[in-house]
Amino acid sequence: MDSQITPTPRALVAYGPPTTTPWRLEPISLRPLADTELLIRTVAAGICHTDLAIAEVAGAFGGFPRVMGHEGAGYVLATGTAVTIAKPGDPVLLSYNSCGACRLCTTNHPAHCLRFMEVNFVGSLDFSSSHPMNKENPFAADNPTIRASFFGQSCFASHTIAAQRSVVNMSSLIKSPEELKLFAPLGCGVQTGCAAVTKVADAREGDTVAILGLGGVGLSAVMATRIRGCKTIIGVDRVKGRLELARELGATAVIDTSELVGDVGEALVHAMQALTPDGLGTTVTIETTGVMGLVEAGVAFTAPLGRYVQVGSTGVGAAVSVQLTPLMVSGKRIMGTIEGDAVARDYVPEMVKWYREGRLPLEKIVGWFGAEEAGRALEEMEKGRVVKPVIVW
Amino acid sequence: MDSQITPTPRALVAYGPPTTTPWRLEPISLRPLADTELLIRTVAAGICHTDLAIAEVAGAFGGFPRVMGHEGAGYVLATGTAVTIAKPGDPVLLSYNSCGACRLCTTNHPAHCLRFMEVNFVGSLDFSSSHPMNKENPFAADNPTIRASFFGQSCFASHTIAAQRSVVNMSSLIKSPEELKLFAPLGCGVQTGCAAVTKVADAREGDTVAILGLGGVGLSAVMATRIRGCKTIIGVDRVKGRLELARELGATAVIDTSELVGDVGEALVHAMQALTPDGLGTTVTIETTGVMGLVEAGVAFTAPLGRYVQVGSTGVGAAVSVQLTPLMVSGKRIMGTIEGDAVARDYVPEMVKWYREGRLPLEKIVGWFGAEEAGRALEEMEKGRVVKPVIVW
Repeated sequence: MDSQITPTPRALVAYGPPTTTPWRLEPISLRPLADTELLIRTVAAGICHTDLAIAEVAGAFGGFPRVMGHEGAGYVLATGTAVTIAKPGDPVLLSYNSCGACRLCTTNHPAHCLRFMEVNFVGSLDFSSSHPMNKENPFAADNPTIRASFFGQSCFASHTIAAQRSVVNMSSLIKSPEELKLFAPLGCGVQTGCAAVTKVADAREGDTVAILGLGGVGLSAVMATRIRGCKTIIGVDRVKGRLELARELGATAVIDTSELVGDVGEALVHAMQALTPDGLGTTVTIETTGVMGLVEAGVAFTAPLGRYVQVGSTGVGAAVSVQLTPLMVSGKRIMGTIEGDAVARDYVPEMVKWYREGRLPLEKIVGWFGAEEAGRALEEMEKGRVVKPVIVW
Repeated sequence: MDSQITPTPRALVAYGPPTTTPWRLEPISLRPLADTELLIRTVAAGICHTDLAIAEVAGAFGGFPRVMGHEGAGYVLATGTAVTIAKPGDPVLLSYNSCGACRLCTTNHPAHCLRFMEVNFVGSLDFSSSHPMNKENPFAADNPTIRASFFGQSCFASHTIAAQRSVVNMSSLIKSPEELKLFAPLGCGVQTGCAAVTKVADAREGDTVAILGLGGVGLSAVMATRIRGCKTIIGVDRVKGRLELARELGATAVIDTSELVGDVGEALVHAMQALTPDGLGTTVTIETTGVMGLVEAGVAFTAPLGRYVQVGSTGVGAAVSVQLTPLMVSGKRIMGTIEGDAVARDYVPEMVKWYREGRLPLEKIVGWFGAEEAGRALEEMEKGRVVKPVIVW
C-alpha cells in the first residue's frame, strides 16, 4: 500500500519513554488495511499528556517501538471494504477507539468500553521502519514491527491507519482546511474537558464549579462551564499564564497553588470555602491533575449534594479514602470518567457549534509546531508554556 | 400543659444504651409548647435501628435520660401560635426535622440540612418524670429534665411535642385511624428505602439492582425497585425469613450471606457477577447494612456507570478506599444519602398512592406491639423475626 503514498510517510517513532529516549522522526511504510480501517493522510495531531503517560508504561501495552498520538485530523486516502463512515477525500477527525460489541458500546457508552485499554493502548503492528533497532524487519510493509493503532489512530505520523470506530467524518462540519487542523484536539482533550462538565457533572447555572488543573482538559472544562452559564467558576493551577488564560476563558476566580502557604491541600480547602456561598465548597469539582493532594482536597471541598469528577489520571493503584458518614450526611457524589462519556460522532458537532458561536475559542489554547519540532512541543507543554501543542504534518 | 392531657402521659424513657440499661415506660409531664411546636397524641411509633444506634452514642448528643422514636403517627391536641401545618384534631405523621434556614433547606433538600445532627439527635429538654434518677427534678413540667425532640418528635411517648418541620398533615391522605397507624414507618425507614431507589439512584426499568440488607429500609427499597419496573432485583441478607419476604415483595433473586463459603465479600462479588448480564455486576447498589465487608463488596460489584448508594450507617470514622483508575475506567458513581433526599410532605403522598395501588404492601413488613412490649419489640427486630416493629400507644 505504501507504494501509493507520496511523499514518503514519516512517523514520530517512540523507542522508549520520552523521558529517557528521544522519539525519532523517520520514514515508515504501512501494512495493508483491514476491512474496517482507513488510510489517513494526517494534517494535524494534538499532543496530550496521555501520549506521554502511556509511553512511560508501554511495557504493559505491547512495548516499543511504537507511534503515539490520539488527537488526529486528516483526509481519507483509502478505505477497507467494510468502511461506511467516510470515503477517500473526506476530511476526518480521529478520536478514541472502542470494541463496538460489549454491553457498554452497544448501549452508547463506548468511552467505558470493556476493552478500552486493549483497543486504545495496545494496538497492533502497523508500520515498518528502516531504523537499525528494527534489525529483523528492515523497511518492509509486509512484515511490520512498529506498534501503532494507538487509540485506533497513532496520528504522530504523516500517514496512518485508523480504525473506523475512531473516525468522525467532518465533511459537513468544516469550512476550511485550517479549521480541520484547529479541530484536531476535539477528538480527546477538549471533548474530555467539555463533556466532563456537560455530560458527567451536568453543570447548571446555579452550580459553583472548581476546575483543578488548567491544561487542555481543564481549560476546556472552564469554557464548557461558562457555556453552561455557571456563575462561579474557580480555576486552580500553579502556572500564572494558565491562570490568566482561565480568567480570559471564563473563570470568575483563580487560585495559584504555588502561592498557598502550609499544607497545600488544607489551604486549598480553606480557599474554596472562602470563595463559595456559605463556605460550603463547590457543587461541581472537575479534577484534571491526578495529583493526590489535589484529589483529596477536591473530595473534601465538594459541597453537600455536589459532584466530584475524577478526570485526570493518577498513578496505578492510587486510591482515595472516602469516609462514609460524611458521604451520607453530605450526599455528595464521587465519580470518575473517561472522555466525559462522550460519543465523538455526536459530541464533536456540538463542540463545533460552540466554536462557531465564539464560545469555544480553541485558537486561544492551541500552539502550532512542525513535525520536526515535536521534541520542543513536548517540552513546552511540560513547562506550561503552551497548553495544547498541535503538530502539523 | 400536661394538666390538660388525659390519660396521664407515658414515655419509654432511656436512661442508657438499650444494650446495658433497659428502657422504662413511665409517667411524664410535658413542658409548654414553643410557637412552632405541636402537642401530639401518639397512636403509633415505628422502631428503627437509628433509635438504638443513636442511643449507643447519646453522650455525644446531650446524654440521658432521653426519649427516642422518630416514626410517629398521631393526632394534634394543641398548636403553638406560629403553627400553620395542622390544627387540633388533624391526623399527622412525624418525620425528620430540619433547620429551615440553611442553604440545603432553602433549596428543598432538608434531609441534608447543615444542622441535621443538631436538630434531630440533640433535641431539647421536653419532659419531666418522677423516676428516682431525676432527683433534682421530680415530676414537674416547669423544670424538664428528660431530653426529647429526637427528630423533632420523640414519639416513644403517648403524648409528645413535635417540631412543625417534622409534621406531615395526613387529613386528606388517610381513610381510617388504622391506616394512620400503618403509615407510621413512612416517616423514616420506608421513605429512606424508597427514595434511595427513586430519587437518589433514580432506578429505571433497565437497571439491575442489588439491595444489601433486608430490614425495613432494604425491603422498602425492594418494593420501590419493583415499582420502578426493574427486571433484576437481588436481595441480600443472612436471615431466611427476610429473604423469603424479599422474594414476595419483588426480589427476582436472593443471596443468603450465611451460606457463602470463604471470604464473604469475595464470594458476594462472584455471586453478583453470576446473576447479572455479562457478569458486569449491578447498575444500582443500595447498601443498607453499614457492614464494611458488604460496603466494600458493593462498591466492587457495582457495574460500569452504575450507582452505589450508601444508606446504612457505618461506625464513626469508617471509610472505604476507592481506587481512582478503576473509578475512571468504570465511570461508576459512589454516593451517600440521608432519608433518600426526600421531603416528607412531598414524598409521603407518593408512598400512600403506591400503597393504595397495592404496590407498597406495608402490612407485610409491620409487626404490632403494645407500649408495654417495647423491650420485646426491640429484641424481635434484632433477631430478625420482625422487620418493622410498630409500638401502638
